[in-house]
Formats: sequence, C-alpha cells, structure tokens
Amino acid sequence: MSATIIDGKQVAAEVRAEVTREVEAFVERHGRPPGLATILVGEDAASAVYVGGKQRACAEVGIKGFDHRLPADASRAEVVALIERLNADPDVSGILCQLPVPGHLDGVELTNLIDPDKDVDGLTVASAGRLALGLPGLRSCTPAGVIRLLDAAGVAIEGAEAVVIGRSNLFGKPMAQLLLERNATVTIAHSRTTDLADVASRADILIAAVGRAEMVRGDWIKPGAAVIDVGINRLAEPPAGRSSALVGDIAFDEALAVAGAITPVPGGVGPMTIAKLLDNTVQAARLQAGED
Amino acid sequence: MSATIIDGKQVAAEVRAEVTREVEAFVERHGRPPGLATILVGEDAASAVYVGGKQRACAEVGIKGFDHRLPADASRAEVVALIERLNADPDVSGILCQLPVPGHLDGVELTNLIDPDKDVDGLTVASAGRLALGLPGLRSCTPAGVIRLLDAAGVAIEGAEAVVIGRSNLFGKPMAQLLLERNATVTIAHSRTTDLADVASRADILIAAVGRAEMVRGDWIKPGAAVIDVGINRLAEPPAGRSSALVGDIAFDEALAVAGAITPVPGGVGPMTIAKLLDNTVQAARLQAGED
Ligand SMILES: NC(=O)c1ccc[n+]([C@@H]2O[C@H](COP(=O)([O-])OP(=O)(O)OC[C@H]3O[C@@H](n4cnc5c(N)ncnc54)[C@H](O)[C@@H]3O)[C@@H](O)[C@H]2O)c1
Ligand SMILES: NC(=O)c1ccc[n+]([C@@H]2O[C@H](COP(=O)([O-])OP(=O)(O)OC[C@H]3O[C@@H](n4cnc5c(N)ncnc54)[C@H](O)[C@@H]3O)[C@@H](O)[C@H]2O)c1
Repeated sequence: MSATIIDGKQVAAEVRAEVTREVEAFVERHGRPPGLATILVGEDAASAVYVGGKQRACAEVGIKGFDHRLPADASRAEVVALIERLNADPDVSGILCQLPVPGHLDGVELTNLIDPDKDVDGLTVASAGRLALGLPGLRSCTPAGVIRLLDAAGVAIEGAEAVVIGRSNLFGKPMAQLLLERNATVTIAHSRTTDLADVASRADILIAAVGRAEMVRGDWIKPGAAVIDVGINRLAEPPAGRSSALVGDIAFDEALAVAGAITPVPGGVGPMTIAKLLDNTVQAARLQAGED
Repeated sequence: MSATIIDGKQVAAEVRAEVTREVEAFVERHGRPPGLATILVGEDAASAVYVGGKQRACAEVGIKGFDHRLPADASRAEVVALIERLNADPDVSGILCQLPVPGHLDGVELTNLIDPDKDVDGLTVASAGRLALGLPGLRSCTPAGVIRLLDAAGVAIEGAEAVVIGRSNLFGKPMAQLLLERNATVTIAHSRTTDLADVASRADILIAAVGRAEMVRGDWIKPGAAVIDVGINRLAEPPAGRSSALVGDIAFDEALAVAGAITPVPGGVGPMTIAKLLDNTVQAARLQAGED
C-alpha cells in the first residue's frame, strides 16, 4: 500500500482561486481592492525574491500591492514612521515586514508595531495572544495552510492524536494551537524530547518542522497516519532518482510505504504559505470594512 | 509503595516568606511598597471572599492593597475609568478585575484594558502572547504555582512526558506553555480526546484540571509519575474516611498507591495561586521600577 500524495500546488491553486473571487466581490462592495504592503529593508537577495513572489501573487489575485523598499542603512525611526503610516492607511489591509532585517534593527520589535488587525503574517504578540485565547484574529500562514491541506485530504482532525515536531514561534507553536482549536489531542515535541521516534509513532497526524533532512524515518510512522512535511532542506545534490536537491524532514520514500497520506517536498506545504497570506489579506480587509 | 505527598501549604508559605523579604528590599530601595489593586463589581458572595483573601494576603507580606468595590449596576464607563486611573497610578504595581462581572459587563474586554505590565493574573491577550512567544511577561498564577510545586518536589521537567488534561485559557493552555518552556514534551488532552486513560498513562508528569470529581483513576497513572491535581469539586458530603467534602479530579487513594508524588485536595495546588499572585505583584513592581 502506498500513501496518497497531498498535492499542495493543487490546493494552493484552489485557495488562490477562492481569494480571486473574494477580491472581486470585495471590489464590487467597496469600490477598491484589499491591499498588501510589504516592507523590505536592505538588499538581501533571498528576501528580495520572497517579497517579489508575494507582490506578484497579489497582482495575480487582484490585491493591490504596496512594495516598500528601504536602504540597508535605514534608521529605526524611518522604518517605524513607515509602519505607522501604513497602519493608518485605509487602502492597506495587510502589512508584513520581511525578516531578517539588518543587524542594527530589531525585527521582532518592528513586527510588533504592526496593527494586529493588519498583521497578515500572524507574528505579533497580539496575534499570538488572540490565537492562544481562541479569539478572532489573523493566524500564521504556514500552520493555517497545513490545516487547509489536512481538510483538503479529508483527514479527520477532531479526536486525532497529533504530534508536532518543532516548537518555533513561526510554525510549531501556532500549529499546535490550531490543531487544538480543531479538537485534536496535541503533543509538541522538540530537540529535548527524550524518545522522539516513540512519540512520533503515536501520531494519527504527524507534522515535522525541524530543518533536518529526512530525520523522520519510515518506522517512526504509525501505519495510515497523515504526514505533513514542513521542513525545507537543500542537499548538495538531488538524491538518487530525484530531480530536486530540496528534501523535507521526512524520509519520503520510506514514509510513502507506511503513511496514509503525505505531503511531498517541494510541492506540499511550501505553496500554501503565500496562498494563506493572500487569504489573510482579504480577511483583514473584510474585518476592517466591518464585515463578518 | 506510597507516593510522596506534595505539601502545597508548605511551599506556598515558602513563596510568601520569599515575597515578604523581596517586599522589604523593594521598600528599602524605593521608599514605597509594591501595590495590588483589586476591582470587585457587585456583591457576589464568593467573589467577595476571594478578593478579601487576596487583600489580606497582601497585608501579610507588606504589599499595599487598593480594594476597589463598585456597585452591581456600575456602568462600563465607570469600570473603564477606574482601570485607566489604576494603569496610570505609579503606586499600583498590579491590577486584577475579579471575575465574573455582572451580566451587562464583558469581563474579557475589561481585563484586556489592564496594562499588560500590571496584569498580575496573566489573563490579557498581551500576556498570553508574550507567554506563547517566550517573551518576558507576567504568567498566570495557578500554572506558575504548579511549576513551583514540581520544582519543590524535585521533579525533573526537562525531557519528561507531561500530559495536561484540560485546555482552559485560565489554566490548561498556559500550563502547557510553561511546561514547554521548561523543555518537557507536552500533550494537551481535553473533552474530545479519544482515549484519555491511554494518553494519561504515558505521563511522567500528569496534571488534571477538568472539574470532575475523581475522574482520573489509579490505573491511568504511570508508576512513579508526578501527579498534580488542579480540580476542585465539592461533594454532597466528605468521602469515607475524609474530613473535607472537597475532592480533586484525581482518585487520590488509588493514585497514592501508584504515583511517585501527588498533590492533595485541599492543600495542594490551591494555596499556590495567591502566593504566585503576590510574587507577580513584586515582579511587576520591579519591572516598572526598571529593575532586572
Ligand atoms: N513555507 C514553508 O514551507 C515553511 C515555513 C516555515 C518553516 N519552514 C521550514 O520548516 C523547518 C523549521 O522551521 P522553523 O522556522 O520552525 O525552525 P526553527 O529552527 O525555528 O525551529 C526548529 C525546531 O526544531 C526543533 N529541533 C531541532 N533539532 C531537533 C531534533 N534533533 N529533534 C527534534 N526537534 C528538533 C527545535 O526544538 C525547534 O523548535 C525549516 O526547514 C524551515 O525552512 C517552511
Ligand atoms: N486555584 C486553583 O486551585 C484553581 C485554579 C484554576 C482552576 N481550578 C480548578 O480546576 C478545574 C478546571 O478549571 P478550569 O477553569 O481550567 O475549567 P474549565 O471548565 O474552563 O475547563 C475544563 C477543561 O476540562 C476539559 N474537560 C471537560 N470534560 C472532560 C472530560 N470528560 N475529559 C477530559 N477533559 C475534559 C475541557 O475540555 C476543558 O478544557 C476546576 O475544578 C477549577 O475549580 C483550580
């Protein structure tokens, strides 16, 4: 028996199509599109690629992009002034500050200046608190994308044993909260977990977000489990029989023989992040317009 | 073999003695004591008893108490004005709004108006967010008290399998976060957990906060586990051989024969909550004074 492969590109395309329709309806109701402002400080090449991708994705679904670029030596005061201006701008529904920022700036501090109602990355203290307390708010994109993938694959979350490996603020912790909100019994494991294979093997839903190539082996996986691979690791060259040098945290070929469903790397979780960013931008615009 | 009984009254007395010394040292440095403001709206008898207990505890350790009582028909604007005045008052280090408030008021909304740096109950969105992101901040009293009990009993938290039954904003969720911060592998279980006995039986540290008398049976407990009983349930009459009609969520006599250490009810977790409230008030005063 071989696991169903969960096609993240396909599900992300569905989300983008939904967002496109929601944007059209929003424009009809309000005479203006939702807007996403990105802030990039400095010339980091990878960050520029990410920001470019986000802006392009906005254009594709009809969200108005505000692409703010500041020089690498921009002062804290300049960045703060920009964030405050964007917080106050009714055409800007969502704001994100691309991390990392240059060393003289504090990315966490700057992020926390974003109005929580415009915090489409879900990274502010206020967003984390709203999530923890089960209050309405914007949720981090990658974990929200994983929930959507599980739903798309027909995985029952309520009552399932879910194990999240990794406890970062960016992914592991909000992922655990979202699974709990959906009534899974949730375990969060990490670098200090004593017997990781044993903990993993209880999971009906196993999610790995560590950043260690193929760390999770086939014999850690409960037969039939839904396995979600968040890790992105670049090997020196593609593994035998593969075209991409990118691999996840799960030993894919081993897992395929045991799991019930699994996300590939690339093409699994990755495409969901930007799709959910677009979705959050529309939700933010609707909330700011007093809808829902 | 019979479990060690963790004496919460004793540990709470130690915390209060520490707080008393810290208050004296604070007065020496600043010429004024830390202050705790309590807000009670209406005449609920149980709430009045709780507030009275907190104010008395303040007096005992040298914290200045500000005991604000508003009539049951106080308007939202009156309560808001009071909270804003207390937020601005440098003699007030900590503020708590006793819940529940009368039906025409929103307790969650009012609590969230408390300055997070004075939120000694740790119940605001900002405090929940700081905890979730691992940032410095004031932590909820009862879960922080449980950590102190585990430390006092010499229980190793790092690397342990911890299971928290119950996921309330008041206790279960912050408890899970604090255990994670101390490097336990943490599972959070709840009313939708499929096989609760099985989940509980993995725990090196088992914490029950449900509110169902003696729900956790002896055969759910891993031999040698540390068992923390947060539940408070009042039976119609004391169980055979007991003097108190209060029982916890753990079947105490059964658990005693299996566990390595266990908290009784009453006299376990209960006394820690006010002790930690006093501790939080001193920590808040020190932070506001620019110490640490
Ligand atoms: N859009 C996306 O697809 C997306 C988004 C976020 C993260 N990621 C990827 O997910 C991975 C994790 O990202 P992050 O930001 O959460 O990482 P991080 O480095 O902040 O956190 C890694 C976590 O893994 C845990 N860990 C480390 N070594 C471990 C071990 N030996 N056993 C068990 N746990 C261990 C740590 O406790 C830590 O909590 C990375 O590969 C990252 O590229 C992808
Ligand atoms: N100072 C203290 O000692 C202190 C402080 C807080 C709470 N408590 C006590 O702890 C208990 C819980 O308080 P709370 O405020 O967290 O309660 P709550 O009612 O808000 O939450 C109860 C939790 O128990 C879970 N639950 C309900 N039925 C269950 C079942 N059959 N199996 C598994 N889980 C189940 C629910 O999912 C819920 O998350 C109460 O008895 C309360 O009096 C004591």
